[in-house]
Amino acid sequence: MEQVSAWRSHGGTQGVYRHASAATGTDMTFSVFVPDHAPGAKLPVVWYLSGLTCTHANVTEKGEFRAACAEAGIVFVAPDTSPRGEGVPDAEGYDFGQGAGFYVDATEEPWAQHFRMRSYIEDELPALVAAEFPVDMARQGITGHSMGGHGALTIALRNPGRFRSVSAFAPIVSPMACPWGEKALGGYLGADRAAWRAYDACALIEDGARLPDLLVDQGEADQFLTGELRTELLASACAAAGIPATIRYQSGYDHSYYFISSFMAEHLRWHAARLED
Amino acid sequence: MEQVSAWRSHGGTQGVYRHASAATGTDMTFSVFVPDHAPGAKLPVVWYLSGLTCTHANVTEKGEFRAACAEAGIVFVAPDTSPRGEGVPDAEGYDFGQGAGFYVDATEEPWAQHFRMRSYIEDELPALVAAEFPVDMARQGITGHSMGGHGALTIALRNPGRFRSVSAFAPIVSPMACPWGEKALGGYLGADRAAWRAYDACALIEDGARLPDLLVDQGEADQFLTGELRTELLASACAAAGIPATIRYQSGYDHSYYFISSFMAEHLRWHAARLED
Repeated sequence: MEQVSAWRSHGGTQGVYRHASAATGTDMTFSVFVPDHAPGAKLPVVWYLSGLTCTHANVTEKGEFRAACAEAGIVFVAPDTSPRGEGVPDAEGYDFGQGAGFYVDATEEPWAQHFRMRSYIEDELPALVAAEFPVDMARQGITGHSMGGHGALTIALRNPGRFRSVSAFAPIVSPMACPWGEKALGGYLGADRAAWRAYDACALIEDGARLPDLLVDQGEADQFLTGELRTELLASACAAAGIPATIRYQSGYDHSYYFISSFMAEHLRWHAARLED
Repeated sequence: MEQVSAWRSHGGTQGVYRHASAATGTDMTFSVFVPDHAPGAKLPVVWYLSGLTCTHANVTEKGEFRAACAEAGIVFVAPDTSPRGEGVPDAEGYDFGQGAGFYVDATEEPWAQHFRMRSYIEDELPALVAAEFPVDMARQGITGHSMGGHGALTIALRNPGRFRSVSAFAPIVSPMACPWGEKALGGYLGADRAAWRAYDACALIEDGARLPDLLVDQGEADQFLTGELRTELLASACAAAGIPATIRYQSGYDHSYYFISSFMAEHLRWHAARLED
């Protein structure tokens, strides 16, 4: 693992790191914020998965998470959203291919070789972070935005007990039921929709997966709310399954980092309360 | 004045606006954050002047000012750093010409026609903001970063009584005594250094200008500290003049928005305490 850059910020260190990923077969870049801490201390960690078109950089620059992480003593990890670079296939459009990995392990060609973001986020990167940073892997939370909210929900649902806290900003709640998701899951996984259910938060809940509880913020002025995000499907699935979900519609807010940053500190305090020793 | 964009953020409205400036003879773009407020209320306003290469967008995206402004009920205005566009002269290098107006009224050709940022920031934009936004112009504060810290200090020093609160992040404190400033003032104002003194915070203080008090944060790891910013000259000038200046050196912090955003909330609380009714 190579340190690309590091800044002193908000009483901690904001770093950017690069490593050769076995899962994706490419170099992968991610950012980590580590608040100052006592020597030898292990801090809880919150994973933030980003949305379509994003890299680690968007939330790192615009997410306004550092003050709250420093106050609560939380490490904040922001991975990239797909493999990238020469030799990695790509597609026209912002919603498939590079920048749009959808946190799946692709099975279709030409994607199957590199687009293995599920393995990367679930297995490879946690092992690296556990080895290289002062984190207590018994105290993990996960969140994300849009496609990354989909990632956070599905990864938490597939790994019961791993995350003490789960939240999302404007998540895609059911890729099987929206154009972005149908394009992505069809392209990466093929036509058999049964294989898609492991990557659909609502389907996972229908199939028996559970979360301890859940916080979701969703902007009412989000241009993707009715056509792509469909928050109401998650509310219904949680209600039917008895998952205590706090799903808040925020008047006037859109899909941007102006929305995310407005509620980031509240989400981190919500995670912090569940990640205490 | 035209609204370019507006986002709901942090319990307020973050807007970007454009207008035809008489001072610069160009269109000028600026951003304004207005927290929610009671109908008819007039809020205090803090001006933020940006540094070399920046537009309104850098602090608007990375400054992390909205939470503190919403909490204190402060309007936050971020202008551009120079005239821009076709027909506006420019120069090689990032430190002169477009993006580097240095908050002066240029007298040298070819700059004199458009590079009139002093008149724009001191006169034209305040009149526009007072007319178009819910601001109480009896309660103004000013701050800025680097070249914008220079702007904030010199504008406050030249306009006694206008600003109740003045602060700066890593300001250029004496352009007459650093390469950036000598290039800029020489280029915009000509060789007569007597004309430069109105644009040099330390010279203005030596010549009798005063501030009520002052907060400055300066990163100790700032690559421009010893060669360009020279914070020690401001400390000496304030001490000699009896200006109560709180000048803090912050260990490990550099010149970036990772530094600025770390101390933005403290600066805004410092302004808020001086801008109360």
